[in-house]
Amino acid sequence: MLSNNELKFLRSLKQKKIRKEYRCFIVEGTKSVWEVLHSDFKVKAVYATPQWAEQHPKFHHDIHLVSEKECEQISALTTTPHIFALVEMPEQQPVFSASDHPKILLLDDVKDAGNFGTIIRTADWFGIDALVCSENTVELYNPKTLQASMGSFTRVPVFRFDLLNFVQEHADSYTFFGTYMEGENIRNVDFPQNCAVVLGNESFGISPQLSAEIKNRISIPMCENKGRRHAESLNVSLAAAVVCYEVGGQ
Amino acid sequence: MLSNNELKFLRSLKQKKIRKEYRCFIVEGTKSVWEVLHSDFKVKAVYATPQWAEQHPKFHHDIHLVSEKECEQISALTTTPHIFALVEMPEQQPVFSASDHPKILLLDDVKDAGNFGTIIRTADWFGIDALVCSENTVELYNPKTLQASMGSFTRVPVFRFDLLNFVQEHADSYTFFGTYMEGENIRNVDFPQNCAVVLGNESFGISPQLSAEIKNRISIPMCENKGRRHAESLNVSLAAAVVCYEVGGQ
Repeated sequence: MLSNNELKFLRSLKQKKIRKEYRCFIVEGTKSVWEVLHSDFKVKAVYATPQWAEQHPKFHHDIHLVSEKECEQISALTTTPHIFALVEMPEQQPVFSASDHPKILLLDDVKDAGNFGTIIRTADWFGIDALVCSENTVELYNPKTLQASMGSFTRVPVFRFDLLNFVQEHADSYTFFGTYMEGENIRNVDFPQNCAVVLGNESFGISPQLSAEIKNRISIPMCENKGRRHAESLNVSLAAAVVCYEVGGQ
Repeated sequence: MLSNNELKFLRSLKQKKIRKEYRCFIVEGTKSVWEVLHSDFKVKAVYATPQWAEQHPKFHHDIHLVSEKECEQISALTTTPHIFALVEMPEQQPVFSASDHPKILLLDDVKDAGNFGTIIRTADWFGIDALVCSENTVELYNPKTLQASMGSFTRVPVFRFDLLNFVQEHADSYTFFGTYMEGENIRNVDFPQNCAVVLGNESFGISPQLSAEIKNRISIPMCENKGRRHAESLNVSLAAAVVCYEVGGQ
């Protein structure tokens, strides 16, 4: 039901370079499509199979019908949800203002798209005001990031900057904290009104250059338990959950 | 380098019914294999490619060499780590003793293997003494559970019981808490020395029958943030992280 060119174009959006070139991306799934339609993102078109449309008679938006096979070819997920939207990337990121975003997380080179999406979802839950990512952090519009964020990418502002510059430029606006294997126990930290917590790469943590700028080292300590050997690390998205819980909402 | 029958058998262990029939399972990856070799689990054999063996000259354990192609066929992961172990399931689960496990999590019908494995890893980090799963919770020996647990399945005791019976039988041993969308804010809860916290199914939460037995309803409240719409739910493994953080170690 799509022209060959349309199908080819939509399929090609699985590739980052194509997303970047055409400045658009695909959002899959009923919930995420609903969220993006109710957000500031500009949706170019919504596609679904006739079966999906039949099962969702209250969905009030123009739908381009596509076949199940086309859906499978376009979907980046293991199982296609039979509905997706073609969405425009914002033309440029808005100007960052510290006063609009008192409580923020900084992500330094987070590489796993699932982790990134999960962190966005958690930040949303706990009312974190914005995420600021390093330039080498995985792409926001990666299908796995979007999927793991469960629609929260439409609500939590995500900025992308050189973090070293960012920390230096905002030294007066925030108290900066970094999460490390060793540092002050997060339970004992009193987070001020304006604070920024840095989470690092899955394998290497926060880069040494950035670490040099961060005075407050905090940690989520492992619990010693009866001499049992223990997990060696906490996944970055779980660490982020504890940070968001402590820093974010009550 | 494997006989056809061996290859066929090892491949078939991706299936739950085969694992159950032969009472063994496969553990993949350098770290997880190392962990299982240093645990109480009985390892029947370790397999690796010649390249892996060459890169790990200090690995002191008999290795059956297998080809890369065989590894790919046997692996349940997207990318084979080129090493795996064949491990026996314990003959029967040990007798549960409340006094040995003062702080526990109960999982009621957790369906996603990745969530289950992540919860095991988090429980390990925060020193939770044991996990007690409902009989319909996803299998511990599912490759995705094992992978997400990052070796922590070798350390955190995992029991499987009818949870309704379990709660009734241990009413005097534990104060039971359940996590709900509405309940007392977990920040204000004082968890006693002997406590059990129930986490529910990803879509439906804790079953009504079990809920009827749980007096203490707690929640991880979403933070209202400037009228921004919010995430509708917190993934069960993230909720577990906050619970483990509050209940577990200091």
